Amino acid sequence: MKWYEKKQGAHPDVIISSRIRLARNLKDYVFPNHLSEEEAREAIEVIHRIFSKEKPDEFYYWDMAQMSSIDKVAMMERHLLSPLFVNMPIPNALIHNVDESLSIMVNEEDHLRIQAMSKGANLGEIFTLASQVDDMIEDKVDYAYSQELGYLTACPTNVGTGLRASYMIHVPALEATGQLRIILEAIGKFGITFRGIYGESSEPVGSVFQVSNQVTLGFSEEEIIEKLHSVTMQIVNQEIAVRDSLLRERRLEFEDSIYRSYGILSQARILTAKEAMTLLSDVKLGLELGLLKLETSGEFNIFDLMTQIQPANLQKYEKKTLDVTQRDMARANLVRMTLPKIQGG
Amino acid sequence: MKWYEKKQGAHPDVIISSRIRLARNLKDYVFPNHLSEEEAREAIEVIHRIFSKEKPDEFYYWDMAQMSSIDKVAMMERHLLSPLFVNMPIPNALIHNVDESLSIMVNEEDHLRIQAMSKGANLGEIFTLASQVDDMIEDKVDYAYSQELGYLTACPTNVGTGLRASYMIHVPALEATGQLRIILEAIGKFGITFRGIYGESSEPVGSVFQVSNQVTLGFSEEEIIEKLHSVTMQIVNQEIAVRDSLLRERRLEFEDSIYRSYGILSQARILTAKEAMTLLSDVKLGLELGLLKLETSGEFNIFDLMTQIQPANLQKYEKKTLDVTQRDMARANLVRMTLPKIQGG
Repeated sequence: MKWYEKKQGAHPDVIISSRIRLARNLKDYVFPNHLSEEEAREAIEVIHRIFSKEKPDEFYYWDMAQMSSIDKVAMMERHLLSPLFVNMPIPNALIHNVDESLSIMVNEEDHLRIQAMSKGANLGEIFTLASQVDDMIEDKVDYAYSQELGYLTACPTNVGTGLRASYMIHVPALEATGQLRIILEAIGKFGITFRGIYGESSEPVGSVFQVSNQVTLGFSEEEIIEKLHSVTMQIVNQEIAVRDSLLRERRLEFEDSIYRSYGILSQARILTAKEAMTLLSDVKLGLELGLLKLETSGEFNIFDLMTQIQPANLQKYEKKTLDVTQRDMARANLVRMTLPKIQGG
Repeated sequence: MKWYEKKQGAHPDVIISSRIRLARNLKDYVFPNHLSEEEAREAIEVIHRIFSKEKPDEFYYWDMAQMSSIDKVAMMERHLLSPLFVNMPIPNALIHNVDESLSIMVNEEDHLRIQAMSKGANLGEIFTLASQVDDMIEDKVDYAYSQELGYLTACPTNVGTGLRASYMIHVPALEATGQLRIILEAIGKFGITFRGIYGESSEPVGSVFQVSNQVTLGFSEEEIIEKLHSVTMQIVNQEIAVRDSLLRERRLEFEDSIYRSYGILSQARILTAKEAMTLLSDVKLGLELGLLKLETSGEFNIFDLMTQIQPANLQKYEKKTLDVTQRDMARANLVRMTLPKIQGG
């Protein structure tokens, strides 16, 4: 058993998903913000050729210039690519595997952003997956690398391992009781950052947050992942403790607010993304605490629904562009159709 | 067909119920606020004897001193007796028929308050019922009466016919759009008053109001009823017009808010009386406008439920005294059990 495997699967309810991102650059090209259009195309071609040759059947290749705006944003909502990548002024391309657990952005802030994702707490496993892709590329190209500093990147915060490890966590109890604020201040000291579900500038919704390491220099990959994991586990344990005390001390109000949220989700005709996220967060919490039981086939995953109701994914589902009101209606419809009934209700 | 029969049954959705109240006093006794305890008992006995002799099988008699506090308040919530009557410092008694459509308070502000109630717009019919009881009593006793002024009463506003005619109306659209305020100011000029559902001091809840005549002197019974009816019909027509325009211009928001109210009612674990009234008011409106269809057996009446969830009636239903939190839970339970499912939902 490897060092990281010991830590898998802890509190899958609170830790929604894990993400590993490696920032890499090609030695023979300047960083993307200084690339000419032609050089940008060349850099893409270098990478594309490797995947065509080494993994011809496992990966999809997308020229971003050929992709519709809705498709781009939908992929962003699924965390397959970044907000920056959607609006890059130079040619850029996305390579990803079938289940979207592995993706490579070419010409984002760095030439390469290799990303691996998984549900639950699986940082170790997906770090291995990302590293395999990383090794495969490094076999064929020279990375910008310094013996002293490690991997070189466009932004100094990524220099070193080029690694960002993230957990997506659902901490409604800490948020509701205001304790999250105190935690946010404390974890900054450990070089850990907290962000909303859709990246650096996004407002937190549905009590879902990304926890990730801020600095990649001066630590090994193992140290970065271990530190992120141990800090996250402290947050998780606090979330569990607050949930327990809410259950003990305010069970009735707790139950009431969860059932009300279910009631609104199951009947509303208009739902903004933000309100839907908040209500789904309540239902998720209710399910995890056993306060609410749904007639699920096992297929139903609230976090998947949280992704499906985002604006672009919703429009892809409806197969047409929708204005804000139409989206709010379509979202309410989708939620009504998808949310299972209450057991015995 | 009599003069009043023409006006029955108009907009039963908006006009929930009709009430007639006649204030009468016994010539041989001072008004109740000056009665000794012994005189109060005598006055009760005079009236009790009439009913025992004339209508032995049709009416129940209650010595209020023997009645529990919860029973008194429950009767008040059903509009069978007044808040003042619950707390009278002298002996008082209630006489009512089986279906509670006719009731006589003995020793309220006046010796006699004869009251008739009915669902829908039926002022004419229930005025006849109240008058029959009035005539039966007047055959046996001398009322305090002046040729010049009419019936004499403890409060000058009731002198004359001693008649108060009331409609209970449900005007959510006028309330939501703020138009009710303007109407309130206007109808004062016609000698018509507006009150919340539970009497003079009660805050309006669930968009239900009592409209009634303010003065009884200088007009015949027919004139009072006709004026109340015509002013109420103007309010009803405005309510209908605003509902129509809301349906035309803001159907989606309208529908959304009605379904959300249903959703909360069908899932909440805690409901205050005030919130439940507001939500039931929305559902009532949705049913009336055909925006919402429930699997009703025809037995379900939202206004009955509005009465059943009042604190004292709720405790009678549960057959025990409940504190505020227990009531809010029992109310949420009762609503969940009583509210029919949505058709095809």
